[in-house]
Amino acid sequence: MNPPLDVAVIGCGRIGRIHAENLVTRIAGARLVAVADIIEDCARQVAAQYRVPTATGDYHELLADKTIHAVVICSSTDTHSRIIQEAAAAGKHIFCEKPIDYDLARIHAALSAVEKAGVKLQIGFNRRFDPSFARVRELVSGGAIGQPHIIRITSRDPEPPSLEYIKVSGGMFLDMTIHDFDMVRFLSGSEAEEIYAIGDSLIDRSIRDAGDVDTAIVTMRLKSGALATIDNSFKAVYGYDQRIEVFGSKGSASAANQTPDNHMLMDAAGVHRAKPLYFFLERYTEAYVREMRGFVDAVLKNEPPPVTGEAGLQAVVMGLAATLSLKEGRPVKLAEIS
Amino acid sequence: MNPPLDVAVIGCGRIGRIHAENLVTRIAGARLVAVADIIEDCARQVAAQYRVPTATGDYHELLADKTIHAVVICSSTDTHSRIIQEAAAAGKHIFCEKPIDYDLARIHAALSAVEKAGVKLQIGFNRRFDPSFARVRELVSGGAIGQPHIIRITSRDPEPPSLEYIKVSGGMFLDMTIHDFDMVRFLSGSEAEEIYAIGDSLIDRSIRDAGDVDTAIVTMRLKSGALATIDNSFKAVYGYDQRIEVFGSKGSASAANQTPDNHMLMDAAGVHRAKPLYFFLERYTEAYVREMRGFVDAVLKNEPPPVTGEAGLQAVVMGLAATLSLKEGRPVKLAEIS
Amino acid sequence: MNPPLDVAVIGCGRIGRIHAENLVTRIAGARLVAVADIIEDCARQVAAQYRVPTATGDYHELLADKTIHAVVICSSTDTHSRIIQEAAAAGKHIFCEKPIDYDLARIHAALSAVEKAGVKLQIGFNRRFDPSFARVRELVSGGAIGQPHIIRITSRDPEPPSLEYIKVSGGMFLDMTIHDFDMVRFLSGSEAEEIYAIGDSLIDRSIRDAGDVDTAIVTMRLKSGALATIDNSFKAVYGYDQRIEVFGSKGSASAANQTPDNHMLMDAAGVHRAKPLYFFLERYTEAYVREMRGFVDAVLKNEPPPVTGEAGLQAVVMGLAATLSLKEGRPVKLAEIS
Amino acid sequence: MNPPLDVAVIGCGRIGRIHAENLVTRIAGARLVAVADIIEDCARQVAAQYRVPTATGDYHELLADKTIHAVVICSSTDTHSRIIQEAAAAGKHIFCEKPIDYDLARIHAALSAVEKAGVKLQIGFNRRFDPSFARVRELVSGGAIGQPHIIRITSRDPEPPSLEYIKVSGGMFLDMTIHDFDMVRFLSGSEAEEIYAIGDSLIDRSIRDAGDVDTAIVTMRLKSGALATIDNSFKAVYGYDQRIEVFGSKGSASAANQTPDNHMLMDAAGVHRAKPLYFFLERYTEAYVREMRGFVDAVLKNEPPPVTGEAGLQAVVMGLAATLSLKEGRPVKLAEIS
Repeated sequence: MNPPLDVAVIGCGRIGRIHAENLVTRIAGARLVAVADIIEDCARQVAAQYRVPTATGDYHELLADKTIHAVVICSSTDTHSRIIQEAAAAGKHIFCEKPIDYDLARIHAALSAVEKAGVKLQIGFNRRFDPSFARVRELVSGGAIGQPHIIRITSRDPEPPSLEYIKVSGGMFLDMTIHDFDMVRFLSGSEAEEIYAIGDSLIDRSIRDAGDVDTAIVTMRLKSGALATIDNSFKAVYGYDQRIEVFGSKGSASAANQTPDNHMLMDAAGVHRAKPLYFFLERYTEAYVREMRGFVDAVLKNEPPPVTGEAGLQAVVMGLAATLSLKEGRPVKLAEIS
Repeated sequence: MNPPLDVAVIGCGRIGRIHAENLVTRIAGARLVAVADIIEDCARQVAAQYRVPTATGDYHELLADKTIHAVVICSSTDTHSRIIQEAAAAGKHIFCEKPIDYDLARIHAALSAVEKAGVKLQIGFNRRFDPSFARVRELVSGGAIGQPHIIRITSRDPEPPSLEYIKVSGGMFLDMTIHDFDMVRFLSGSEAEEIYAIGDSLIDRSIRDAGDVDTAIVTMRLKSGALATIDNSFKAVYGYDQRIEVFGSKGSASAANQTPDNHMLMDAAGVHRAKPLYFFLERYTEAYVREMRGFVDAVLKNEPPPVTGEAGLQAVVMGLAATLSLKEGRPVKLAEIS
Repeated sequence: MNPPLDVAVIGCGRIGRIHAENLVTRIAGARLVAVADIIEDCARQVAAQYRVPTATGDYHELLADKTIHAVVICSSTDTHSRIIQEAAAAGKHIFCEKPIDYDLARIHAALSAVEKAGVKLQIGFNRRFDPSFARVRELVSGGAIGQPHIIRITSRDPEPPSLEYIKVSGGMFLDMTIHDFDMVRFLSGSEAEEIYAIGDSLIDRSIRDAGDVDTAIVTMRLKSGALATIDNSFKAVYGYDQRIEVFGSKGSASAANQTPDNHMLMDAAGVHRAKPLYFFLERYTEAYVREMRGFVDAVLKNEPPPVTGEAGLQAVVMGLAATLSLKEGRPVKLAEIS
Repeated sequence: MNPPLDVAVIGCGRIGRIHAENLVTRIAGARLVAVADIIEDCARQVAAQYRVPTATGDYHELLADKTIHAVVICSSTDTHSRIIQEAAAAGKHIFCEKPIDYDLARIHAALSAVEKAGVKLQIGFNRRFDPSFARVRELVSGGAIGQPHIIRITSRDPEPPSLEYIKVSGGMFLDMTIHDFDMVRFLSGSEAEEIYAIGDSLIDRSIRDAGDVDTAIVTMRLKSGALATIDNSFKAVYGYDQRIEVFGSKGSASAANQTPDNHMLMDAAGVHRAKPLYFFLERYTEAYVREMRGFVDAVLKNEPPPVTGEAGLQAVVMGLAATLSLKEGRPVKLAEIS
């Protein structure tokens, strides 16, 4: 057995805490040795809760610490590309939450730094690690459905983000649909060729005023020839709606929603079951554990990480293409985005 | 109780026989009194099987027969608009298989003739009468899901038509997707505003050579603001795949496939169930009965038929828009089609 | 193709009408030529509705008619064994509703008469022809689940029969559970060895006062070694609950309830689907057609009928054993019943 | 917030390790401070893995340690009642795996000691904490199905225990069905009145030679009037089969199996899904966490534990009644067992 991987978490918000807890309780091969947050008290609080030896308000201290092997970047999006570059320069392996950035030049700079340093970089596309989605991918890549022809994704949140968030989020396609774009690549094993998007604000007109949409359908042609459709909404009142399907020459593989329990009530009014799990924290609990295990294993075994920097880049390119398509009301080739 | 409605069937191919059998065995208020087919032997055979008094090779005889109240037009598509006009002029109520025609001028001529004659015209969009689809429509129109935001339709045939048929069919969007276009109108209660289509021949390249596609995704904006997506394939190896969903501000109503039985086998390899019913004859058996019952009732009670000529027109307009969109690689407004 | 089988229906109550309608509309090989009912008006009414040439108040006339090949006995239970004997003596093939009788001596007399006359006798255990149940039987007999170990049946009516009916019905086990007893034999391919029954009137105490139970569980050992359990209720408020399972050395085959449609509604309160079909007329529509087709085919092809007189006998023996078990509070061997 | 509860685990076998891991990683209010095992190396290994300060081969040391508030007894069954008494005398709160003992006198002695010491005792009926089963219980106790009439439990293991284990297990009813007996009490809220059991060894005749059965059906009358049926098998080749249903005057509440994922594959052969989770470790992962949380909370808040010693006693009484019923081939009243 390897000695454990000593890991630091940078950014102690909601997602940072999830990774911290998983590293402490569920990832056998790793040890959480330090946490940083720009609000030092947050870092201290997380450190206290999980008995982490080091807490700091300045993540540079952690990068300077030679005993730390890897960092998990959970800070705000605008800091990702910079910290990736600094961490790479410091020789740390890197797990970074999505997106790397919204600016392609900055993404390329980050990826170059990683390549030059020869460190590993994994992007936090957690959904790939959902047991159902992973099983569908496995069936597709194992040939169970033959050649993929149609990829169909439904991805709906239970409630919109705050207007404040919407104003700085980069828009639905870069903030929310980005996960679905990655899923299309993951499921199909192909790059997108051309994207077309329609959308509107049907839930709340103030979302339109904030410059975004809350309901959208994106379709695309892939280089493999397959076609894909994604439908998104900010507000499914029945909970987080996350369904995928890959249809091909020999069949169809799909994944249904996950529920908190498997009960069924039959009464005079009908047959009733549990709603889908509420949101990503509930639905992807296991996926968060598995992605971190995948990262830690990749570092310990010196293997390529399961979600590469290229995946992080391509999903942003797709998001930019969809954003442009919506703006100009026409299909946009990915080659147009640079 | 009314005296029965005396009905004649024109065209004794596959679909004509279904309507003939249903009129004889399942439609209490109607009496099948005559059948016609350009191949007189076909008409005679059907008449013999269902004990129908009159069989002819020339449907004009039936139009001239004053005792016949209504005709069911199941002849080839190119004859529909003409026979509608003749039947209307003869004062017959008309049930006509879809599509009325692929040419808008001929459709308008047929609809004008119907209006002028004051007879009833119902178009054979049988899927509206599928118990599951009808239930979804009922839930939507009853407000169970609030304002519709997204309509999602999967419609896949178990096997492609013959190449000979494909060459004269008008193309996938006018022949196959036309049912889905009607379903979007039926489910949403709204007209389409703009349509975008992508498609390719992924199943069989000779379909491309014949000028058609076998796999497609169509998206559209509706006048109500709702968005819709349809995915089509000519070949789902597991059977006829017919699923719909309407997602709205208060929830989602959907309909799953129908299977020949409800068995479940659990063994060491997995959990197995029956495939969807094979094709439209199996899946829409009940829908064919209900649509004819709807027509007969509308005539007997002098009420508007449940599927109007306008529905027949609009679905063709949508099919033409999708065909143009695919050809030109851009979204097409319905207002462009005239 | 054979000339059609000329059939008469004796008894024009609810079930007689179903068979009459099916014979007229859905059974290609048969012709309904006569109907009888002790209330002659009923017979006339059915004859008028289905254009049947002959109607009579005295079924003996039909037995005397040499042109009639087969009779369908749907009269009251107390007349079954006598009419079977008379029909057999008249050389008619016989379809008889269950049960043959509640008295074993009379059943034996009926079966002897059938055997002596060399006519065919089929008992109306319609559930064997339900597509889902038939599929489970097929899986079991085809070896898909290996050796059967446990048979599990849930069989619940949506509402109790009238108290008047309960008083003369022979009791729950002979009237209702008899179908489940036949199902145990059908699914397992084995005879019962010993039966134990518990029951009570939990729905309505006046059922107890009428000498019956409304809720029961019956368990049994089969000669094959397999074990079986049946649970019954007179009142499932959500509709007719008819589920079976056969569990064996290589897996489990089961059948779920059937619903009027496949819709699903997801809203803020939960996920909702259609209730099971209301009662036997709705659930077993197709099974009634298939059992009659099976009878007509067996006669036309001179093959053994799919449900024999022996099946009719054994189900009654099982019902008597369960009745005795409940009365005496002990397991009863079938060998005790004679 | 309370200071954490300091807990010791006695017995470091499979189930002891589960509780140890859960106490360390998932139970916020508790601290695992010591582990004991008769094989001291086992204790040391577990202590090392979970960084537990104290490990010993002699649990008496832990009972003597005043800083330890509660013990979790996971040693072999024959030691349970003795350790309960010793732990109670030492003033420790007690979580004890099922069963307390197979001997009623020893159970009573243990329960008396607990009562006298005024400590809390919770029995490890983990299934009560399964989210689906707990939801069904909640629906039943909340009145959603009215008065319970029928309780139906299917409980099948994926593979038989070893013959060595079978010889000392106390028999299927005391070792395996005991969980189902507790489930009947939990779901119905009623005690059993009379039990009848049938069983055989259909899987492996050497199980019969070892004095046990591998397949069984148990039925019972409850004091409330409700009826119950349980079917058990040692070998479901498709995995752990754990389903329950409570049927009542206003409806039915049930829980289906749990699968590792929600994928569906449709191909030319059929529609396929994942098998149930393999065995109790996979199926009841979450239930083990919740039961321990329930225990820790009960102690910290000084409330009655969610599964009492009485529950432990009654399930054994039911197991003894079923065992006697099988042996004597007759229904056995619980009042006979003492």
